Amino acid sequence: MPHPAPSPRTRARRLHDKAAYDRAVIDAILDAMPVAHLGHIVDGFPVVTPTLQWREGDRVYWHGSSASRMQKRATGTEVCLTVTLLDGMVLARSGLEHSVNYRSVMVFGQAEVVEGAEAKATHLRRMMEQMFPGRWDALRPITAQELKATRILSLPLTEASAKISAGPPADPPEDRAWPVWAGVLPIRLTVGAPDPAPDLAPGLPVPDHAKGYRIG
Amino acid sequence: MPHPAPSPRTRARRLHDKAAYDRAVIDAILDAMPVAHLGHIVDGFPVVTPTLQWREGDRVYWHGSSASRMQKRATGTEVCLTVTLLDGMVLARSGLEHSVNYRSVMVFGQAEVVEGAEAKATHLRRMMEQMFPGRWDALRPITAQELKATRILSLPLTEASAKISAGPPADPPEDRAWPVWAGVLPIRLTVGAPDPAPDLAPGLPVPDHAKGYRIG
Repeated sequence: MPHPAPSPRTRARRLHDKAAYDRAVIDAILDAMPVAHLGHIVDGFPVVTPTLQWREGDRVYWHGSSASRMQKRATGTEVCLTVTLLDGMVLARSGLEHSVNYRSVMVFGQAEVVEGAEAKATHLRRMMEQMFPGRWDALRPITAQELKATRILSLPLTEASAKISAGPPADPPEDRAWPVWAGVLPIRLTVGAPDPAPDLAPGLPVPDHAKGYRIG
Repeated sequence: MPHPAPSPRTRARRLHDKAAYDRAVIDAILDAMPVAHLGHIVDGFPVVTPTLQWREGDRVYWHGSSASRMQKRATGTEVCLTVTLLDGMVLARSGLEHSVNYRSVMVFGQAEVVEGAEAKATHLRRMMEQMFPGRWDALRPITAQELKATRILSLPLTEASAKISAGPPADPPEDRAWPVWAGVLPIRLTVGAPDPAPDLAPGLPVPDHAKGYRIG
């Protein structure tokens, strides 16, 4: 894996022990959690929008409507894409040492737009296939109009960093005997039983890609 | 509940049917999900940082280290605080209609710092008591030095909006007979069994505030 030196933006200034620039660590977090929060500047103000991301090799992608002002404005401008997984609440003996266990990735860079219907269709297929293998070819085929209405953006992972916090509370020795319960409340994302559309045609069983979907 | 008119920043430009400005809706989302993504501008670039938020009445709060450059820079400047809950993956008959069910809130405004040790302690107690009722008074008491090391910021909820997407896939009538399974994969955050700290003193049972913790 490439292992770029941290840039001034990605270098952790605090909590150095939690920071990682290793692409294997970064990729694993991006691949585990499709929800990203995308930050850009609109009319001089920061705006943070939730969106779905997916990774293809050394780039992270997201998409939206071509009619979206946010999507248009993100193109060619500096953005920050952050992905966070909450893994637990950490209950310590002091208020100060309370914290959360989490995995997060921040990616900085200039968003680039994917041009061309064929390229767009290829990326959308990959997005779908990563989440739901085999589904794309079973869908009503995408149309030229739908591709036109879809804007796909991407960022290279050259300016990316991860932060991971895990494990039990880290109370200093002098606090450890304080008579209060301490420990971790583990938190995870779980997928419930597939809920068929009310207007689903009869005789269509739940496919493996829906039964097997996992997140987190 | 106050029901302010949407500002130019909070007014939904797309997906109007999903937007809400009702404080009851906004409050319920903020109260269900402590993880927020805070966007600010640092050296001209957008930066999105995950942080914990909590609500007190008409304001949303977050905190961090006084030594954090991010926290310092957020003070008095425009920020965007976004909270998102992923509720499900929506599998439709066409790629275009695939979507996610979610609840999200965006709050815009100028971050204000909480001044004074007493005020800080009051807010930290409220944060703890909202998550873990009864825990604050059982903790090793907070010190003056710890309060000094903690920066608390807040935003009013005057420029806040919610977006909610829920329900089954919304395929147009002509696609509904396409022979592919369609429906929702529900997703939620679950809390596992409390995991005691390895150095926990003997004879400390799991308290109700840890057993009863829920998120989402």
